[in-house]
Amino acid sequence: MIEFTENEKLKRKFYKIIFEADTPAGKLFDVVLIWSILLSVVLVVVESVHEYNEKYQVLFTAGEWFFTIMFTLEYMLRIYVIRRKTVYIFSFFGVVDLLAILPTYISLLFPGTQYLMVIRILRLMRVFRVFKLSNYLAEANILRKALLASSRKILVFLSSIAVLVVVIGAIMYVIEGPKYGFKDIPTSIYWAVVTLTTVGYGDISPQTGVGQFFASVVMVLGYAIIAVPTGIMTVELSALHRKKNTTTTRVCPECMHEGHDDDARYCKYCGHKFIKD
Amino acid sequence: MIEFTENEKLKRKFYKIIFEADTPAGKLFDVVLIWSILLSVVLVVVESVHEYNEKYQVLFTAGEWFFTIMFTLEYMLRIYVIRRKTVYIFSFFGVVDLLAILPTYISLLFPGTQYLMVIRILRLMRVFRVFKLSNYLAEANILRKALLASSRKILVFLSSIAVLVVVIGAIMYVIEGPKYGFKDIPTSIYWAVVTLTTVGYGDISPQTGVGQFFASVVMVLGYAIIAVPTGIMTVELSALHRKKNTTTTRVCPECMHEGHDDDARYCKYCGHKFIKD
Amino acid sequence: MIEFTENEKLKRKFYKIIFEADTPAGKLFDVVLIWSILLSVVLVVVESVHEYNEKYQVLFTAGEWFFTIMFTLEYMLRIYVIRRKTVYIFSFFGVVDLLAILPTYISLLFPGTQYLMVIRILRLMRVFRVFKLSNYLAEANILRKALLASSRKILVFLSSIAVLVVVIGAIMYVIEGPKYGFKDIPTSIYWAVVTLTTVGYGDISPQTGVGQFFASVVMVLGYAIIAVPTGIMTVELSALHRKKNTTTTRVCPECMHEGHDDDARYCKYCGHKFIKD
Amino acid sequence: MIEFTENEKLKRKFYKIIFEADTPAGKLFDVVLIWSILLSVVLVVVESVHEYNEKYQVLFTAGEWFFTIMFTLEYMLRIYVIRRKTVYIFSFFGVVDLLAILPTYISLLFPGTQYLMVIRILRLMRVFRVFKLSNYLAEANILRKALLASSRKILVFLSSIAVLVVVIGAIMYVIEGPKYGFKDIPTSIYWAVVTLTTVGYGDISPQTGVGQFFASVVMVLGYAIIAVPTGIMTVELSALHRKKNTTTTRVCPECMHEGHDDDARYCKYCGHKFIKD
Repeated sequence: MIEFTENEKLKRKFYKIIFEADTPAGKLFDVVLIWSILLSVVLVVVESVHEYNEKYQVLFTAGEWFFTIMFTLEYMLRIYVIRRKTVYIFSFFGVVDLLAILPTYISLLFPGTQYLMVIRILRLMRVFRVFKLSNYLAEANILRKALLASSRKILVFLSSIAVLVVVIGAIMYVIEGPKYGFKDIPTSIYWAVVTLTTVGYGDISPQTGVGQFFASVVMVLGYAIIAVPTGIMTVELSALHRKKNTTTTRVCPECMHEGHDDDARYCKYCGHKFIKD
Repeated sequence: MIEFTENEKLKRKFYKIIFEADTPAGKLFDVVLIWSILLSVVLVVVESVHEYNEKYQVLFTAGEWFFTIMFTLEYMLRIYVIRRKTVYIFSFFGVVDLLAILPTYISLLFPGTQYLMVIRILRLMRVFRVFKLSNYLAEANILRKALLASSRKILVFLSSIAVLVVVIGAIMYVIEGPKYGFKDIPTSIYWAVVTLTTVGYGDISPQTGVGQFFASVVMVLGYAIIAVPTGIMTVELSALHRKKNTTTTRVCPECMHEGHDDDARYCKYCGHKFIKD
Repeated sequence: MIEFTENEKLKRKFYKIIFEADTPAGKLFDVVLIWSILLSVVLVVVESVHEYNEKYQVLFTAGEWFFTIMFTLEYMLRIYVIRRKTVYIFSFFGVVDLLAILPTYISLLFPGTQYLMVIRILRLMRVFRVFKLSNYLAEANILRKALLASSRKILVFLSSIAVLVVVIGAIMYVIEGPKYGFKDIPTSIYWAVVTLTTVGYGDISPQTGVGQFFASVVMVLGYAIIAVPTGIMTVELSALHRKKNTTTTRVCPECMHEGHDDDARYCKYCGHKFIKD
Repeated sequence: MIEFTENEKLKRKFYKIIFEADTPAGKLFDVVLIWSILLSVVLVVVESVHEYNEKYQVLFTAGEWFFTIMFTLEYMLRIYVIRRKTVYIFSFFGVVDLLAILPTYISLLFPGTQYLMVIRILRLMRVFRVFKLSNYLAEANILRKALLASSRKILVFLSSIAVLVVVIGAIMYVIEGPKYGFKDIPTSIYWAVVTLTTVGYGDISPQTGVGQFFASVVMVLGYAIIAVPTGIMTVELSALHRKKNTTTTRVCPECMHEGHDDDARYCKYCGHKFIKD
């Protein structure tokens, strides 16, 4: 019985170190973690460069496996010390933590996939917690809220774009044909996306007069509808901005509710009559 | 006489199945329709890929004709069972339903046009009705309204763009000339559209110093005027958003002031206590 | 004396036909003018296409001169019949009318400049007046006002861009150098404009690692500052929109001034006390 | 003692000439300075053009050194006459003034860096002060304020973009590989930036089907998230615009209500008559 409690105590201690950042040990752990993540990502990025790869391949492979095993141990430890294990495993950071170690193991079967381990850069988002960058978290939150609030409009917008590029792609395929680079409809759809989003690689571009005319129409269309997501986002951000600015003003001296309009003469929560200052 | 009524009854039954989606049969019909549309579009897209086309051409042609004949029968049935036939035929979905079957027939005369049948992907917009995605319909409606409300401004804007690209195209043709890819004014206008919309394929690009300077001016111009449609759209969306948010709220039964917040318990103008419903 | 009055009368009659569009003759004149402009522009555009130019050169030259002489006569007539001649000559349409005829004459000295006559397409803006498209004029007016109201901000913005591209261009020239297409600083500045405006032709693009890194920074910068003109324009349009929407409401029954705020209890122009309805 | 005062007097006189622009001598100094800056920048830009460089190299080098020595003397004089020397040296203009002369000296060690002296174009920002373009300064100030106010949101946004392009770059490197131009992860990250910002050079572009599909997703993503900085900027500009328009106006001396329109002659809350100033 005593041993079990000891175990529980240890678990709790580790939990504080690994998941929280309020104790010195917890802070140290997070700082070491952040540097390990950064280092392992830089390692993978540099490894992909041919000239370095040739010279230091052994070093890269060693470093890769060192960090992967370290992160694997950390992942297992996280699962071990946390109480609600499935909640963590299927949480955003739980999935990212798993994705951060998988690629190296998979690369044993499919060489090349180890580069996907850069996905562990997403773990850096923990940095916000460690350094108490709460102001930035608040800003990030506003952006996230605006995105969420407009997610439905954006989904409708993206579906329309998806239908549009299929139709545009097929029409362009009929107009230009495989002779001018539009070798099949999927490629033409790819061209339509490249054009409508105003990216314009130019790897495929219309050569015939009719094709160039149709492409011009598509471009102007893309130029005009880029206004839609911008408008959506602006309105949502503006609404959130106004809300923040208008609900932090007057406080009722009677019921302490805040957020009264400037021209209110009675508290809208308790009916207390405001005395003009 | 009885036979005629029977016929009417049958028509009504079919109408409910084909045009509505409230009965199980109607729902089933819509689901089958949606999958048929998706399948036939995928078929056409895959058919256009050279390697598959060579191997399975018979299969593709068969599938194509199968779906086209099915959709033709459906189209005829729709006309048959609906009372106000011309209204349907010239409605948006009526035209789309017709355009969805025409290309296969036309391809007998002009091979290659069968690819245009991907236009039947537009029929998928019925999906909103079937799955009662009314929330999304509302959002789509807001976007549609904002576009309509600003259609005049957008038309004025697009006309200005049209005049602008003709003038820019001609000036660039005089500056660069056929020697550097600007082989005639229509091509130069195409280049002007590609540049002004910031697409920038690079299939045609200025080579002379004067041309590059003029192109730079055009680009900065394009960069500045992209603000116009965005501004228009944002203002319209914002107006619709504000309308929705402010005109649907509460009126005080005592002093008739309106515009109270949803969580207000007292009128902010006269202090009257609201009774919860 | 009588002859002079006759002359004056004639001038006035012509003035009504040429400058106004309220009489049938004036309307007819404008319609003929619009078609002539369109036809002559199409003529020039088609002339520039090599294959047509070879076959029908005589026809093109004849048509060109026919329209130019016609427009010259019209221009002289306009000056003759109008009273305040210098005002017309230096007005927007006066300058456009002159620019519309000059290129053909200049082409006698410098062949090729006749293509610049497409500038006469700007004369089409008269179309708004002829067809009483006053609604569109109003919308165009709003856009023009918003552009004017924000012209100072836009000028400051464009100056900053101008300084920025010179600095970016020079830095990139030092980084990449003539070996990789950045053959001198003007060309590098051109590349900076192409990149910062997100046009991205790709005719010149960084090849070295340092260059690609620096270019990435420039691109993200361009991506971020495109927000500036859009923000400016949106705010101006929004202000105009709100003004239009808010100044057309309450009218004081005493002094007939309009544009009172909804919560005003006294007329802000004459002090009349409003009676609550 | 008298000599020291004389020295002080001289310093003060020079200070007025060099740092201020209210005396005729100060104005002349600034005008000469502006022209020198412009001339020396043009000199460097023209020098980089191969054909001119070959012919007039001696002239360019002479001009370069002439302006550099002149600016060096000016820089030393500025430090000499100003009282709070370190404040000036580390101020924005102090740093720019130093950077404006360094490249020429550095070019003795590393030839080619003299082109970096175009950075002295930043000194032109003094032009605002000289010509009393205070209106423009105000506008520039608004833009600067909006940028500052939204700097945190923009930083969060840019960090997200940075993480995103690393992940996208690595995924694309695994999909396409060195065979199709994505020669290592840094290059792939560069491609991700080029694509996400909709610049789209096309120097590297996906060739495989999977790569083109993934690129399409990235493009649509970039198209959607360009809305974010625009929204941020618009909201900030809008807030500044509203503030300027509503909080700087009139207060009724009778009832102390504020926010009266500029053309109001009576208080809209108590009916008090305003006295014209």
